[in-house]
Amino acid sequence: MSSTEARRSIATVCLSGTLEDKLTAAARAGFDGVEIFENDLVASSWSAKEIGEHCAELGLSIDLYQPFRDFEAVPPDVLARNLRRAELKFDVMDQLGVDTMLVCSTVSPDAVDDDDLAAEQLHLLAERAAARGIRIAYEALAWGRFVNTYEHSWRIVRRAAHPALGLCLDSFHILSRGSDPAAIRTIPGEKLFFLQLADAPRLQMDVLQWSRHHRLFPGQGAFDLTAFTGHVLAAGYRGPLSLEVFNDVFRQADPGPAAVDAMRSLLGLQETLGSADLPPAPALAGHAFVELAADASAEPEVAEALRGLGFAETGRHRSKPVRLWQQGTARILLNSSGPATGASVGAVAVESADPVASARRAQRLLAPILPRSHRVDEADLSAIAAPDGTSVFFCRTGTADGWLGDFTETPAVGEEAGVTGIDHLALTQPFDHFDEAALFYRAVLGLEPEPVTEFAAPFGLVRSRTVADPSGRVRIALESALLRRGEWAPAVREPQRIALSTGDALASARRMRELGAPLLEIPGNYYDDLDARLAPDPSLLTALRQQSVLYDRDERGELLHFFTVVLGGRVFFEVVQRIGGYAGDGAVNSPVRMAAHRRQRRDA
Amino acid sequence: MSSTEARRSIATVCLSGTLEDKLTAAARAGFDGVEIFENDLVASSWSAKEIGEHCAELGLSIDLYQPFRDFEAVPPDVLARNLRRAELKFDVMDQLGVDTMLVCSTVSPDAVDDDDLAAEQLHLLAERAAARGIRIAYEALAWGRFVNTYEHSWRIVRRAAHPALGLCLDSFHILSRGSDPAAIRTIPGEKLFFLQLADAPRLQMDVLQWSRHHRLFPGQGAFDLTAFTGHVLAAGYRGPLSLEVFNDVFRQADPGPAAVDAMRSLLGLQETLGSADLPPAPALAGHAFVELAADASAEPEVAEALRGLGFAETGRHRSKPVRLWQQGTARILLNSSGPATGASVGAVAVESADPVASARRAQRLLAPILPRSHRVDEADLSAIAAPDGTSVFFCRTGTADGWLGDFTETPAVGEEAGVTGIDHLALTQPFDHFDEAALFYRAVLGLEPEPVTEFAAPFGLVRSRTVADPSGRVRIALESALLRRGEWAPAVREPQRIALSTGDALASARRMRELGAPLLEIPGNYYDDLDARLAPDPSLLTALRQQSVLYDRDERGELLHFFTVVLGGRVFFEVVQRIGGYAGDGAVNSPVRMAAHRRQRRDA
Repeated sequence: MSSTEARRSIATVCLSGTLEDKLTAAARAGFDGVEIFENDLVASSWSAKEIGEHCAELGLSIDLYQPFRDFEAVPPDVLARNLRRAELKFDVMDQLGVDTMLVCSTVSPDAVDDDDLAAEQLHLLAERAAARGIRIAYEALAWGRFVNTYEHSWRIVRRAAHPALGLCLDSFHILSRGSDPAAIRTIPGEKLFFLQLADAPRLQMDVLQWSRHHRLFPGQGAFDLTAFTGHVLAAGYRGPLSLEVFNDVFRQADPGPAAVDAMRSLLGLQETLGSADLPPAPALAGHAFVELAADASAEPEVAEALRGLGFAETGRHRSKPVRLWQQGTARILLNSSGPATGASVGAVAVESADPVASARRAQRLLAPILPRSHRVDEADLSAIAAPDGTSVFFCRTGTADGWLGDFTETPAVGEEAGVTGIDHLALTQPFDHFDEAALFYRAVLGLEPEPVTEFAAPFGLVRSRTVADPSGRVRIALESALLRRGEWAPAVREPQRIALSTGDALASARRMRELGAPLLEIPGNYYDDLDARLAPDPSLLTALRQQSVLYDRDERGELLHFFTVVLGGRVFFEVVQRIGGYAGDGAVNSPVRMAAHRRQRRDA
Repeated sequence: MSSTEARRSIATVCLSGTLEDKLTAAARAGFDGVEIFENDLVASSWSAKEIGEHCAELGLSIDLYQPFRDFEAVPPDVLARNLRRAELKFDVMDQLGVDTMLVCSTVSPDAVDDDDLAAEQLHLLAERAAARGIRIAYEALAWGRFVNTYEHSWRIVRRAAHPALGLCLDSFHILSRGSDPAAIRTIPGEKLFFLQLADAPRLQMDVLQWSRHHRLFPGQGAFDLTAFTGHVLAAGYRGPLSLEVFNDVFRQADPGPAAVDAMRSLLGLQETLGSADLPPAPALAGHAFVELAADASAEPEVAEALRGLGFAETGRHRSKPVRLWQQGTARILLNSSGPATGASVGAVAVESADPVASARRAQRLLAPILPRSHRVDEADLSAIAAPDGTSVFFCRTGTADGWLGDFTETPAVGEEAGVTGIDHLALTQPFDHFDEAALFYRAVLGLEPEPVTEFAAPFGLVRSRTVADPSGRVRIALESALLRRGEWAPAVREPQRIALSTGDALASARRMRELGAPLLEIPGNYYDDLDARLAPDPSLLTALRQQSVLYDRDERGELLHFFTVVLGGRVFFEVVQRIGGYAGDGAVNSPVRMAAHRRQRRDA
């Protein structure tokens, strides 16, 4: 079997719900098999036999029964008890129809540090297992009492020398300890009984807590799973690629989307391994437009703000209540057919070198394809739904049959204010979908996630992660509260930001004020502190203060930026001037901006 | 000034919201003063002068301006910049009207490991400060680059020898490193410029992350703050007791209750120091009754279940639609005047040796006192509101003027089933109020909190902490989801459990089944696993399986317990038999019970 045909499995512990909920979600997401986590089975009202039958009906194989703990290197009386325990679990496995059991390296106070004894007792267990047609996959826990590296577990398995005893390799246990996975290539493939995959962020904490609460699906964290899995496949492993992810958020999230997220992570990993048959992600060349859905009460407020920001209405859609507003290459579609929920970003559109290929790739990566109604003479835009429900369009604005043809030109009235295009977007993600969103944009659009950052905002900690194409022309900041917010949060709920670029922030701010833009006032304390922190040139400081423009600096450049008030309850604009190679989005200034938006709410 | 008069302060960083929100909450909770956290000031629309005036109006002194970072042991050019920065902050402090600035030990890459240089530069800073009437309180961060113990910060302050330079002691920085605080007594009291108090759970993680996310108010964590604060007071410290708690939950919770929680923590600490003028907590002798509020649709279901559990209706309230159901000393009041929200625990009542003193203490500890309407011939029960809104009554059931006199006796009809009393209650706490609830029961009722435990339930991790009186006769398990639940949670929301005691769980279960109690069925897989794990005697295992009774064992004894289905959407009963000194509540079996309740919901 070539690696292109590797089966994809998932441990039931990855998903929320009862066993019934989990199996349904795994099957719907297209997994080939599952690992049955013992606690899920114990709490199930189905007998082991019924679970086996149900999996078969769903088209799921059962690839592993796990975990069996604290078996080896114990005194004879404990060994006898442990063998009884194993035999009872073999009975369950027999009913389930699963032939491989995971045995974790011991953490028991009963155990002794004796590799020979461990090997001898594992040999005995394998002998008992073999008599039942079962194999034992021995795994070194990163916090195993004596055995906590894969090299050590391999020495014991080799010493035990039983055909029914092999290794289970788990990327978390190996990479969290900083072990070099290259030596996996020296292990014979037929002794690699099972492979469990998990990613994780780099955290400075107890490895057991890290493992049990913060694992992620491949592509969401900081581990190099492509290299790791490459070593395992090179050694000759032929079993499934199986996810085992303990994550506090996934454990309480709807298992349907979580299973899709999991499957997407494996498809993405297989692509980087060169073994997935996916159309490559076409190059993206920038933001084509942002569509704002606004209800009848919000529409005039947004239109007025756009005019103040220097936008002009330049087109009307031929068949829908949608107006095109434009300034430079920044295009905002204002759709007034939205439900009565104020204003929000309904769609983002990116310029794709090949929109049809972009959509085909998205579909292969399980992105929901959005049905579009359009007249025969209108452009057939390809659109998918992001995890937060936002529509993502792929388009080529410059072409003859492009989407602009759906609009009749109207004479542009109004004055410009220096906006040249869209710099980035910032979209608050639903709490349960933060990591899923980053992987979605990475896998589906081919954007690169930057590291996760956190900052203390007035109403709680905020987590942020930007995904961007290599040229930085498509850039989306994903934000979410670190803890799901409760009733106390008099801040803007799920805010969305459209950041426009300018070559001269101070001039744009001055012009926009003249045009009546509803710009956000920044308090004087901010400028006093800015003076103390960064000591900008006094004349610059005075100008920033006069225009309520915020400022930041890094080793590569400077950022000047300012904001509008919140429009229609949720959306606001930012205007950004980047000087030199400034890389971030001015997150250091976010708490000040948030407090100012809070005042706006109180004043309203 | 004696320690009984110590002023109580709170750092604005402890609370959620803008500076305006925080100051209002601190003043309402009765704090004497605040530490102004710089970020809160920077984001405020009030000028420093206006903030100072506003605090004065609220009756709050400003006791500290903080933090000033990365000052000392740097090259001359950096020193010049740092002094400029300090002078600008002195300007702000002058406007605020605060005379003490916190300077944290450096973490800067610009700094060098040179105590003499640090002392020399801090002397210079103190000289500049003194000229403005300001004092510098130097604090060793637990993760300071060179200075990270209070002993080291004291050596530097002593060497600097400036009257305007002293120490800030922070209990977290000192106790998190395991430093011995006893040597604080050797520091002259006049050099202790400030004291910051924070508790914390014992966590195995990076100390900076631990500090910035997981601090708690005194009495909520694992630190011995009584001993710590005792050393500081013995040294002659005469400043305020000031809370500085960085906590992810408090940072996003309503600041009103959080400030009350904070104040309660300081009152409790002062009591253990012998310096709070609080009436002592009267002894508690058990649960007097539990009142269930049930609407018209839930009332018959609950009454039927009570009958099935062997309860009999023994009394009717003289003036309210409340029935008393009793079995042994277990008393359930069924109040059918509740709003249409199914069934829930409306009140818990404890037997107090002195109900009036219990209520007086509660009031002093800022517990809301509930107004009670009662007729002149009815008992005047003292009641307060717990953080989850449950009423807590203090009563003496046995006395002539006791609450039972409010009920007319009715002839007891029905058969008993071996229930002897109430073993414990388990009440789900609102997410933002978990730690507050533990402190509430500790401080107000004098219950002792047991360690926090966590377990993986089908719909996410659950955190649990039991508070109990020393005799174990009053016992309340506080539970909460580790992460606030979102829309996916097809489990029982905010469940409440009333655990009854029996001397023979198997006999009670059998009898209750005969009486028609709606007992929860436990799946066979549980018993197969129980056999493998604990190998109970085969005849016991068979009986447990037949009666759907669950089992656990610890080093001191055994637990047999079983459950009803969920009644009225939220409440269920448990029946508990404790054998020997079994200490817990069978939490190991909770996931199985939760999955069974989930099936009940799906079947419904």
